[in-house]
Amino acid sequence: MTPARRANLRRLLAPRHIVFAGGDSAVFAAGQCAAGDFKGEIWGLNPQPGRFGAIPSYTSVAELPEAPDAVFLAVPRQRVPPVIKELREKGAGGIVCYSAGFGELGDDGVHLEQELIDACGDMALAGPNVFGLLNYITGAHLWPFSHGGTPVEQGPALISQSGMLSGYLLTNRRSVRFSYVIGAGNQSVLGVEDYLDYLADDPSVTGFGLYIETLRDIPQFAAAVGRALDRGVPVVALKAGQSDLAAQTALTHTGSLAGQDTFYQALFDRIGVARVSTPSLMLETLQLLTTAGPPKGRRLAAFTCSGGDVAMLADCADREGLIFDPPDEATQRALRQWLPEIATVGNPLDYTTPLWGHEDTLEKVFAAALAPGYDAALLVQDYPPPELGEDRPYYQADARAFMRAAAKASIPAAICSGLPENLDIETQQTLIGQGVAPLQGIGEATAAIRAAAVF
Amino acid sequence: MTPARRANLRRLLAPRHIVFAGGDSAVFAAGQCAAGDFKGEIWGLNPQPGRFGAIPSYTSVAELPEAPDAVFLAVPRQRVPPVIKELREKGAGGIVCYSAGFGELGDDGVHLEQELIDACGDMALAGPNVFGLLNYITGAHLWPFSHGGTPVEQGPALISQSGMLSGYLLTNRRSVRFSYVIGAGNQSVLGVEDYLDYLADDPSVTGFGLYIETLRDIPQFAAAVGRALDRGVPVVALKAGQSDLAAQTALTHTGSLAGQDTFYQALFDRIGVARVSTPSLMLETLQLLTTAGPPKGRRLAAFTCSGGDVAMLADCADREGLIFDPPDEATQRALRQWLPEIATVGNPLDYTTPLWGHEDTLEKVFAAALAPGYDAALLVQDYPPPELGEDRPYYQADARAFMRAAAKASIPAAICSGLPENLDIETQQTLIGQGVAPLQGIGEATAAIRAAAVF
Repeated sequence: MTPARRANLRRLLAPRHIVFAGGDSAVFAAGQCAAGDFKGEIWGLNPQPGRFGAIPSYTSVAELPEAPDAVFLAVPRQRVPPVIKELREKGAGGIVCYSAGFGELGDDGVHLEQELIDACGDMALAGPNVFGLLNYITGAHLWPFSHGGTPVEQGPALISQSGMLSGYLLTNRRSVRFSYVIGAGNQSVLGVEDYLDYLADDPSVTGFGLYIETLRDIPQFAAAVGRALDRGVPVVALKAGQSDLAAQTALTHTGSLAGQDTFYQALFDRIGVARVSTPSLMLETLQLLTTAGPPKGRRLAAFTCSGGDVAMLADCADREGLIFDPPDEATQRALRQWLPEIATVGNPLDYTTPLWGHEDTLEKVFAAALAPGYDAALLVQDYPPPELGEDRPYYQADARAFMRAAAKASIPAAICSGLPENLDIETQQTLIGQGVAPLQGIGEATAAIRAAAVF
Repeated sequence: MTPARRANLRRLLAPRHIVFAGGDSAVFAAGQCAAGDFKGEIWGLNPQPGRFGAIPSYTSVAELPEAPDAVFLAVPRQRVPPVIKELREKGAGGIVCYSAGFGELGDDGVHLEQELIDACGDMALAGPNVFGLLNYITGAHLWPFSHGGTPVEQGPALISQSGMLSGYLLTNRRSVRFSYVIGAGNQSVLGVEDYLDYLADDPSVTGFGLYIETLRDIPQFAAAVGRALDRGVPVVALKAGQSDLAAQTALTHTGSLAGQDTFYQALFDRIGVARVSTPSLMLETLQLLTTAGPPKGRRLAAFTCSGGDVAMLADCADREGLIFDPPDEATQRALRQWLPEIATVGNPLDYTTPLWGHEDTLEKVFAAALAPGYDAALLVQDYPPPELGEDRPYYQADARAFMRAAAKASIPAAICSGLPENLDIETQQTLIGQGVAPLQGIGEATAAIRAAAVF
């Protein structure tokens, strides 16, 4: 990234003025941005006057009152290169190019994409072929669909070569609230590694979620990841292309060469990127890493109030390569002091229903079990829905005992539900407030711990 | 199962009277049953008079007004065998034994469990070491925790060696509503195969979800599964014990010898049991099989409005061994008539946003794509939450087009969300009403299709 382009990317991510250029999509995006918290100027651009209602609008780039810091571009594909050239000549900073139909189409589109690149010069351009850019720090949203997000002071940044994926991650019910959502699309000008490079030092960014079809500049990517990790900011990647069909798809989706998958895996392992395979695992792994921090290894201690959960945990962990070291003899003796007769001493530990809700005893149980030293601690709890709330205090007592014991052991801790939906938003918020990650689903939790244990 | 015990199991599952025997757990269970739809008699039993409030109660078995069809037993473990003997002498039908502390404890408990078995005679006994029995057909609930379920006319039956698991599956937000939930526990008298055998012919049972640590009688199990499948009733099993640790856990949890896992897998494959590895996959697979029916093989056709979903579907399907046959030349030509220029013809097919909401065109696209013949059809859609409802009609239009095309192709069809929570209850109900399975999560959907394709 040239210094000039870097300066323009800064303008794009913290703009004083935004132009929305195009028809219905631009009009919707402009209205949505105007209805939010953005403090700068918003202008419309369309050859037909009056398309933007109460928002000041112009029929040509030349008429704009000054050079815009950010532009949302949703014009017919053939018009994209000439409009970009006019914007560059006007002195615009950055462009989010929603228009599609470039390299991903093959021959004709490849040619048009080259024209786009030539027209762009040193401007910062996201896309083409992206949904847009959401900025929950300043409200500078360039996004043509309802998103429903709320302002945050900090949060993970999502950088995605799939617009639809970023759209549906936004509506998660897992308390993952993003700071930035950036569509990378065809990466004709700026690529995933450029955004990562720029945001690696941004204090409002607490983590990175990446959906990648291809990386263009591996050394730049590795250096940016290194800077993020040095600051304690984790990077989680959903990289498609493990199968031949997915690799072929990436070519037609965003014109990307997905590359040799084993090469990517080796790269991620080496530089400390947590790799996941589904959208929910991206969120779970980000949640674990940003809330509780990275496990130093794969040695897990787990607690449940159910023998069935113990057996399922054992199977799930086995598939993920996690290790349940059994308690040593001294720990076994300590545990027997507190556990009821019917309990079996082990790891995972079923502390059994007679101890359910006995906060002080359970804290001693958890502390004794964690004493030998593990890399992470996990408690399985399925909270009843609000209408069956009378048992809730027992669950909360068990959770408090667990959180205190894990804090004293100074290891990353998570509470997961056996069934994903059995961990409500209120409970999620309580756990996050204590630095304990709420994870949803017993298989998802073990997969997230495995993915996170790359450091 | 002897004919006498079978007759007693019938009494347990369709009782005229229920006795709740014991302290707090029995009192809670009696009150919950009384507050529901059960039409028969409810009696309490405790040496202390007056423990059951307004519910008629007795201080000894001898005093009961007649021989109860069903008994919920929650007395101290040492009292279990003598009380069972008294109940047998009284002529009781069946017992749900909530009390724990038997074979799962080792030596002492093994002895007590044998006393229990000897005392039981030909009565039907579920457990010991179970949460209980829920009966959503008649309201004859013997269950000491809030469950929140509602009466149904039919639905899948859940038979589980883990009480906690059955408890948290009940609060699913996936529109899976059970007819019966039966705790199998230690299986001292009745085992998973007995319940399956008895319910295989019950018209109110549309499917079986099993959580198994061990099976006691393989030929009986295989015969019962065969009868269920002959009637079009699928069987989905979550069988713990793939790992050594899980196998060892099963022994201490329910005193079960989990057995050689490869043997179980071979059995399930041979007799057509769909095997899954997590609670959410049990629900997803049951949903697919009971709503849409079993895929005849692994050849899948899938549709999305996102290139990212295509790549992720390709990777997920590859891991599961599902096959995406590409469209033949005639199909490609047919598709090109209807798809926009920017679309890439393939399977999975990204029909692209310009066609979003164009119901008639999409029906032609889906019909053309399905024409070569597949074993199942899948559409990926992430519905926005209710507060962002303005795009909902587009999603619904695409879903209707898909459902009509899949119905004409006469293959099982499902709509899945990329992120599990992006398929709301209202949408779930609409799809189920059309015989299309709502599946939650792109990884979960491919795993469920794979698990279901065993027939």
